[in-house]
Amino acid sequence: MNIEGSVLALSGGIGGVKLALGLQSILAPAQLTVAVNTGDDFEHLGLAISPDVDTTLYTLSGQANTELGWGRAGETWAFMEELGRLGAETWFRLGDKDLAVHVERTRRLAAGEPLSDVVYDFARRFGLATRVLPMSNDRVRTIVETSAGTLSFQQYFVKYACRPRVSAIRYEGAEHARPVPAALAMLQEPDLAAVVICPSNPYLSIEPLLAIPGWRAALRATKVPVIAVSPLIGGEAVKGPTAKIMRELGLAVSALTVARHYEGIVRGFVLDAADAALAPRFGMPVHVTPTLMRTLADKERLAREVLEFARALRRTGFPAPVCPAGR
Amino acid sequence: MNIEGSVLALSGGIGGVKLALGLQSILAPAQLTVAVNTGDDFEHLGLAISPDVDTTLYTLSGQANTELGWGRAGETWAFMEELGRLGAETWFRLGDKDLAVHVERTRRLAAGEPLSDVVYDFARRFGLATRVLPMSNDRVRTIVETSAGTLSFQQYFVKYACRPRVSAIRYEGAEHARPVPAALAMLQEPDLAAVVICPSNPYLSIEPLLAIPGWRAALRATKVPVIAVSPLIGGEAVKGPTAKIMRELGLAVSALTVARHYEGIVRGFVLDAADAALAPRFGMPVHVTPTLMRTLADKERLAREVLEFARALRRTGFPAPVCPAGR
Repeated sequence: MNIEGSVLALSGGIGGVKLALGLQSILAPAQLTVAVNTGDDFEHLGLAISPDVDTTLYTLSGQANTELGWGRAGETWAFMEELGRLGAETWFRLGDKDLAVHVERTRRLAAGEPLSDVVYDFARRFGLATRVLPMSNDRVRTIVETSAGTLSFQQYFVKYACRPRVSAIRYEGAEHARPVPAALAMLQEPDLAAVVICPSNPYLSIEPLLAIPGWRAALRATKVPVIAVSPLIGGEAVKGPTAKIMRELGLAVSALTVARHYEGIVRGFVLDAADAALAPRFGMPVHVTPTLMRTLADKERLAREVLEFARALRRTGFPAPVCPAGR
Repeated sequence: MNIEGSVLALSGGIGGVKLALGLQSILAPAQLTVAVNTGDDFEHLGLAISPDVDTTLYTLSGQANTELGWGRAGETWAFMEELGRLGAETWFRLGDKDLAVHVERTRRLAAGEPLSDVVYDFARRFGLATRVLPMSNDRVRTIVETSAGTLSFQQYFVKYACRPRVSAIRYEGAEHARPVPAALAMLQEPDLAAVVICPSNPYLSIEPLLAIPGWRAALRATKVPVIAVSPLIGGEAVKGPTAKIMRELGLAVSALTVARHYEGIVRGFVLDAADAALAPRFGMPVHVTPTLMRTLADKERLAREVLEFARALRRTGFPAPVCPAGR
């Protein structure tokens, strides 16, 4: 796509990275940077695991396991089988290939490297021109208060398969975390064309980033359009627990709720065609289009429309983001 | 074999464990305890690796890779290939199954468990009745001074394939290490029938244990025969760098040198038939027999002869071990 400047996408795992893949596909090499949620990172079996970062690396480099919907293509499970035999915890499945990423990341973090350097190097070794950044080099942990007690994100998401009822979500460490420096720099560069909030779970995948004060301030201060793409279609999530969590938190399951959640940050909203009737109620520019991404062509088309929407907003000007009291 | 009482074998990896397998095969379940060298343990890629302990567990449970001569049978290498792709060190090859042992051991050690508890549990899960003990729960590291500089044991043995010339060997931490408590207790039990020093490398595999003052004292104090089986046949090692190291250290490559090395500890020596002419020079009871172990039958026969030799010594009495000055 003939777009000038760089694009910063904010994303979680599976859902959001689909759009990141579309963006990568239509942009020139190195034009795209993806800042990825690390709130669901965790230490497991002594290993530092960054599920959303890895999903992003694997997906953008064409190595994602599309059958499983997570992990590596062509994965094998000898390690996991043996681990079970030794009586260790096996609820979080680590494939033999995937494990190399965790072991090497753990080693390099223990040696004092920032996560962003490790991820940068992995991306390069995976042949990516796209820059993949963890949202922060500081520790942020998404904690889910549920009917089964206080759970780490991965316990909630994988071990309990999102079954417990959610009463609150916290982002431990976010208050004192700093955005990854390369993303902060990018938000101030004149070259930046747009910021895209991918259709990830707003509460589990995007909010860990927005809960970092430096991220929130930088996104509010940036001069380019910040566009959110709705993770809901006709009041339901394509996949994953977004709608279930919204209901449990007492929120109306609607793209409008998501837009309100992003108030103060977002200057344009991409709404699914199924929800077109809601458009007039957003109080900000809205682009209505089918948002379901099944094929690469779907992803590329949506990515192109998002960037054209941003270009139009830049050309016509756009309102300063609404800043509700107290945020 | 109808032998009364328990047997304690001291062993390193591949060479020594052959005799341990023979002992296990002829003894009743749980009659055998093997105390294993941990001087070549090391931390690699953030993992706690215990090569001789694992070789012992794998061999005694019938899971050793007999083609490679190390590691696990039916091993796969997906992790290692991927690790190489990430630019990590690959000179120490970790198979996918083998890795489960390292990851789980690392996790449990980090959680504060003593190594002996972890190994006990692994042995049980591998279906072993034989008790496998690390020589110590304290850290002992064999350091090799060579023409290529100061090397950790695994660097010397694996990375440099024993090529550099050895000028000295140290056992860091041995001075303050304590023997694993279960072995100390066993050495004082009236039930103990014999201690067998397996035909492992005396300098790299047995000395790390003997360099621990508590082990040396307990072996000297025990009332049962301590029998060493020669690792040399006709002045050469069956496999491995024993003879090369002895030459480089300026020692005569002879079973007699090994016996002198074990002076103060050993009360009977099993000498290969090829070296029968040396027998009168040992100054202690010697049993001469073929010691090459190719088949399980070889291992069982040698094990039986060693235990019969010990029984004969117990019956006839045996000299107190010679204690050379200064030891």
